[in-house]
Amino acid sequence: MTTTYRIAELDAHWRAANYLAVGQIYLLDNPLLAEPLRPEHIKPRLLGHWGTAPGLNLVHTHLNRVIKERSLEALCVWGPGHGGAAVLANSWLEGTYSETYPDIGRDADGMRGLFRQFSFPGGVPSHVAPETPGSVHEGGELGYSLAHAYGAAFDHPGLLVACVIGDGEAETGPLAASWHSNKFLDPVHDGAVLPILHLNGYKIANPTVLSRIPEAELDALLRGYGHEPLYVSGSDPALVHPAMAGAMDRALDRIQAIQREARAAGTVPGAERALWPMIVLRTPKGWTGPATVDGQPVEGTWRAHQVPLAGVRENPEHLGRLENWMRSYRPEELFDAEGRPVSSVRACVPEGERRLGASPYANGGRLLRSLPLPALDAWAVPVEKPGSTLHEPTRVLGRYLAQVMRATAGRRDFRVVGPDETASNHLDDLYDVTGKAWQGTTQLTDQNLSRDGRVMEILSEHVCQGWLEGYLLTGRHGLFSTYEAFAHIVDSMVGQHIKWLKSARELSWRAPVASLNYLLTSHVWRQDSNGFSHQDPGFVDHVLNKSPEVVRVYLPPDANTLLAVADHALRSRDQVNVIVAGKQPCFDWLPIGEARAHVARGAGVWEWAGTDHGSREPDVVLACAGDVPTMEVLAASALLREHLPWLAVRVVNVVDIARLMPHEEHPHGMTDTEYNALFTTDKPVVFAYHGYPWLIHRLAYRRTGHAQLHVRGYKESGTTTTPFDMVVRNDLDRYRLVMDVIDRVPGLADRAAALRQSMCDERIRHHDWIRAHGTDLPEVADWSWPY
Amino acid sequence: MTTTYRIAELDAHWRAANYLAVGQIYLLDNPLLAEPLRPEHIKPRLLGHWGTAPGLNLVHTHLNRVIKERSLEALCVWGPGHGGAAVLANSWLEGTYSETYPDIGRDADGMRGLFRQFSFPGGVPSHVAPETPGSVHEGGELGYSLAHAYGAAFDHPGLLVACVIGDGEAETGPLAASWHSNKFLDPVHDGAVLPILHLNGYKIANPTVLSRIPEAELDALLRGYGHEPLYVSGSDPALVHPAMAGAMDRALDRIQAIQREARAAGTVPGAERALWPMIVLRTPKGWTGPATVDGQPVEGTWRAHQVPLAGVRENPEHLGRLENWMRSYRPEELFDAEGRPVSSVRACVPEGERRLGASPYANGGRLLRSLPLPALDAWAVPVEKPGSTLHEPTRVLGRYLAQVMRATAGRRDFRVVGPDETASNHLDDLYDVTGKAWQGTTQLTDQNLSRDGRVMEILSEHVCQGWLEGYLLTGRHGLFSTYEAFAHIVDSMVGQHIKWLKSARELSWRAPVASLNYLLTSHVWRQDSNGFSHQDPGFVDHVLNKSPEVVRVYLPPDANTLLAVADHALRSRDQVNVIVAGKQPCFDWLPIGEARAHVARGAGVWEWAGTDHGSREPDVVLACAGDVPTMEVLAASALLREHLPWLAVRVVNVVDIARLMPHEEHPHGMTDTEYNALFTTDKPVVFAYHGYPWLIHRLAYRRTGHAQLHVRGYKESGTTTTPFDMVVRNDLDRYRLVMDVIDRVPGLADRAAALRQSMCDERIRHHDWIRAHGTDLPEVADWSWPY
Repeated sequence: MTTTYRIAELDAHWRAANYLAVGQIYLLDNPLLAEPLRPEHIKPRLLGHWGTAPGLNLVHTHLNRVIKERSLEALCVWGPGHGGAAVLANSWLEGTYSETYPDIGRDADGMRGLFRQFSFPGGVPSHVAPETPGSVHEGGELGYSLAHAYGAAFDHPGLLVACVIGDGEAETGPLAASWHSNKFLDPVHDGAVLPILHLNGYKIANPTVLSRIPEAELDALLRGYGHEPLYVSGSDPALVHPAMAGAMDRALDRIQAIQREARAAGTVPGAERALWPMIVLRTPKGWTGPATVDGQPVEGTWRAHQVPLAGVRENPEHLGRLENWMRSYRPEELFDAEGRPVSSVRACVPEGERRLGASPYANGGRLLRSLPLPALDAWAVPVEKPGSTLHEPTRVLGRYLAQVMRATAGRRDFRVVGPDETASNHLDDLYDVTGKAWQGTTQLTDQNLSRDGRVMEILSEHVCQGWLEGYLLTGRHGLFSTYEAFAHIVDSMVGQHIKWLKSARELSWRAPVASLNYLLTSHVWRQDSNGFSHQDPGFVDHVLNKSPEVVRVYLPPDANTLLAVADHALRSRDQVNVIVAGKQPCFDWLPIGEARAHVARGAGVWEWAGTDHGSREPDVVLACAGDVPTMEVLAASALLREHLPWLAVRVVNVVDIARLMPHEEHPHGMTDTEYNALFTTDKPVVFAYHGYPWLIHRLAYRRTGHAQLHVRGYKESGTTTTPFDMVVRNDLDRYRLVMDVIDRVPGLADRAAALRQSMCDERIRHHDWIRAHGTDLPEVADWSWPY
Repeated sequence: MTTTYRIAELDAHWRAANYLAVGQIYLLDNPLLAEPLRPEHIKPRLLGHWGTAPGLNLVHTHLNRVIKERSLEALCVWGPGHGGAAVLANSWLEGTYSETYPDIGRDADGMRGLFRQFSFPGGVPSHVAPETPGSVHEGGELGYSLAHAYGAAFDHPGLLVACVIGDGEAETGPLAASWHSNKFLDPVHDGAVLPILHLNGYKIANPTVLSRIPEAELDALLRGYGHEPLYVSGSDPALVHPAMAGAMDRALDRIQAIQREARAAGTVPGAERALWPMIVLRTPKGWTGPATVDGQPVEGTWRAHQVPLAGVRENPEHLGRLENWMRSYRPEELFDAEGRPVSSVRACVPEGERRLGASPYANGGRLLRSLPLPALDAWAVPVEKPGSTLHEPTRVLGRYLAQVMRATAGRRDFRVVGPDETASNHLDDLYDVTGKAWQGTTQLTDQNLSRDGRVMEILSEHVCQGWLEGYLLTGRHGLFSTYEAFAHIVDSMVGQHIKWLKSARELSWRAPVASLNYLLTSHVWRQDSNGFSHQDPGFVDHVLNKSPEVVRVYLPPDANTLLAVADHALRSRDQVNVIVAGKQPCFDWLPIGEARAHVARGAGVWEWAGTDHGSREPDVVLACAGDVPTMEVLAASALLREHLPWLAVRVVNVVDIARLMPHEEHPHGMTDTEYNALFTTDKPVVFAYHGYPWLIHRLAYRRTGHAQLHVRGYKESGTTTTPFDMVVRNDLDRYRLVMDVIDRVPGLADRAAALRQSMCDERIRHHDWIRAHGTDLPEVADWSWPY
């Protein structure tokens, strides 16, 4: 299929892209080398990563050809995203850059602008970024390319997702785990992923592991991952081009055959898993760049990683070397007098939305359809009076999510991911509607596995997160359920996703995508069968450090409130919603209508739970956020009502934690007027919080009444023990809260000394019982609410 | 070598361990089944993980045999650490449990105590934990066993580290990456790691990937990882015992041969990498437990994961099933009338410290020697007056660390790990002393690779962290250098390590181990060639949520202070020290003597930098923490001195950030008296902080003067730009700080209106210059300090 003629065109495109990548790193002006290079043409700060650029350009060039020849819908995930100059170069060559940013035309002036803006203050980042047309992957933090690629391919049967994996990235844990994603990809309903492992041999300063193991070992590894590898190696473009073209054709023929066969057969339980092709591309780091600099080898070594010639502005020899280097691409053959790429350079480039920079899949908001969300009332639990019934909040949510799954059975644009915890987190009603994606072998005892399931379970939080990010960024919806403590495993990934969303929101051409929704459950207070390692509520603290326009944190206190939060989260766009909710039986407090209103307000007085009867000046505010703290606060309020009925206690529940922040700092933040109306300016506030108590202080420190704010929460006192022992150990229990009130309301210490003592005694009685019997006292284990 | 006779003994030991594991999950009393089981013998809450226990018991039994027969020094890392009951059972059988905890004797009373305490309030956790004799790995959060095992083996040439990897854990990213650790293990100077991949087929609720790929694919994968796999499969103990014994013998023979050959040859550059053996053990989940329960298959399925018979106390049939199950191990053959394990059960158990529960390697503090740290004066930079010279702090540290490396060349108990960033972080003087560990192939252009190097670089923060944890917990020292932003990748791992240290500190039998020291550099303010994805100072916030007795955070403002902090950190024990320091040229402020005193104080007034001349009542306090904020504060102070010479400005530098916390909350926290003496109770404090500004508020919110505290820091405004543009974008620049002072000192707004306007103008002038030229103005880029 490939002819010499076409190879010359491919080579021209590749040389043009290489030229443009070098130009971006070095040049302020004289983009076409119309005159000899002078120091003033050179940027004063040389920033960028040359080493990976020629490899990325080679891949882009050859993808262009097959996309055009085969009329493919394709997307490419550029794992070595730090080689941003290469992807920008290709976008400019294919015209998508100028269409997205009309001030950077596809001509000499535009080329000057393209060069100047790169890694330049007020310009564009040095990495592939949201600003880069065609991108869904930043690549600055390595490890997530392949999981992103699979996420993009799920439920996009017509899509080819190429994924360039650098051999540095291949050493990371998340990438190493992601290879097994092929056990979860359904050739009938999903698209294809074509991994291209680019072995250029070096990381920043070291050889890479995969480039330095014997070839037979590498081959075994990749076959062990379930792939059929195709190898392309070399440093002579005249040989590499046909080899790469041949490998691309063989890979795509194979993908087509797998898909044709699978789709003809339909979804066959127990069918053999397809062995997908992949490409191993072995070319020198910094290929076509300076072979040596100042007597040191550069091309083909780690020295080519960033800027091979570093002293260009000061060192005339380096300047000359740069000019020779750039002229070695023969720009005069590649660009016309106006700086436009000539037709032979553009010959391999596909048209319109087939261009990688114009792929609608890379601007997933354009493909996004709102979810057909069911009316909440049908899925809510009836609540005749607060605390008269118990439900497992996540089980109620599971039924609702199953309905969302049912309603999207045809559209296939909703998935639930989790690290082997969907059933443990009590979301297993989902299996009434769909199975767990699984292409491995099956056994008779297996349950709920299916080749086309839309619940995704692999014991890797990294892979779950990467899949979901890729799925959302290409225009779909989803939810990630995980044990609360282990959300920290993806701290870094969610930080990068928040950064992506923050930047993307500022780009008018990027359409909003569905939010990334976390359900954190099996939380710190109810790790009954595990222990200290499973107790960590700090993920909330981590995300609240990030961009407030993106981050939302919800702590629904009961099942209906959880439903209302989920409904809100699944409608939202361009956000990260963290929802913390329990899976254990929990009192129902609010009917669905009130729950919805409470979520809309984000925080509010629960008059029925307090004794201030709507008075504007209670004696004390008992505040709570989270299911277990709410339970303890309501119990404390009941104790106060019983023993100190004349005390005006206001109960405030906070479901949207960012409401506590100043209005100026977070879009959900309360004004001071709103805050003061809830919490007063001078009354003691005893706040029972689900997580680390100082988080509440850091959110509320500017409030007038802050000096009166006393917060109880998890203070890292954990182990394998009973639920009530956990709250006692951390001073979050009802008795301690009553003591806190007595200690803080002026004049109460004397009037309520006996009650205080009895609260102390209660704590000891519980402690002793728990140690003796191994269980909680029935009165807290099977408590019935007195309202 | 194995005989039928011995197999009977091995089986007896295995049955005894299985019996004890079941007993721990279920029984309060009647440990020897001296009478028929009654409901009151059963725990009211059934907690624990049976599924993995028989496999762990099998491995422990067979390790016992080879350790004893071959007189090995061994350690085992139990990846499925949630199967804590199994490891406790073995410890009790070998006697180490009773030696460690004399109240749990090796008799019937002790067995009752062993059973009762498990997962019981006030008892022991359900996981392998610091409380477990012989443990260095908790295993609650999956993924780190193999990296821990390698860390333990490095520089322990006489040690065999067996490592059981569950097939659930094998799906995680960190574990998947850790397989390549064998490219970094030197058979001459390091011990051996024997991975035992235990395929019991299921996770919590799903089949595992590795148990459901074709055998040929699995074999290819493991060979691709560089191992020679030995397979043991089956469910008939009579067949599995000899197979396992044979595989153990073959593996250990092979290890011995590799070591003998390598050690005879010595360190040979370019020698071929050894292909180490490993064992694949395929046995049913919940093996020997109930085959079915209530009509559902259990043994060999995910239903065996936790507690196979759940209703024992209420359901007489389940109670009977439990009794039959326990009696199936024939306890009467295993324990004598006093409940002591009989001699045939103990026959395979090694003696003394060879017992896995008594291995000194698992209580590494016992092996720990203090580092031969050099006198700081020889490695410090001379500082005649503050700000007259520039040094790269991490480069100065690198020279000091090289000296530590030199002084430990014979002892080999110090390593530096990092994800391919040691040179990028300017620590490359280390290579004058040692190389980078590397057993892969080498090329002529390679530099500083060596088979016995003690700098460890792999592009996986997870593996780096796991290696170092394993190295430290087995009695050695080390430092982890990484880009600040990417420390978040190991958020979860460091959280678990802090939990480990917190618990271990409470155990008198555990000797203190060396602290885990982080050097976070290439920090948020100086990501010149990368951008937004590389800008995140939040790791400090994460660790400061954790146990204050373990966590320390230092922000040294210059090279000598960094040296003093490093010296302190390398002497400390049982802590996690996070050191944030720059690698770019930075003014030297303090001579080494003052630096040391400043670190000892943790925070102090820099009189020479202020204009309050030691007065007790300055007009304003300019506080700073971190190298870039310190620079900006000193510049702001110089501007104020120049323009408002009559204003009494006090400059306070904070190097030990926990000093800001209340004395009661953190051992390094200041008393209110100390705090007030530095910061005053009522004067405005303008605090320039390295990271997220609200961290300072959350640490200092209880202080009297908190309402006057105004903090500047990183507020998530990042991109690829110049260093000064970064501080301007985040309002941390000198001009903004001067404006903050003017805005906050009462009465100053009027008197200094002109200065305020000129500060505004300066910001605009810088902004415009940076956008036009792509560089900082020379006056901030090459600033010379006016003192």
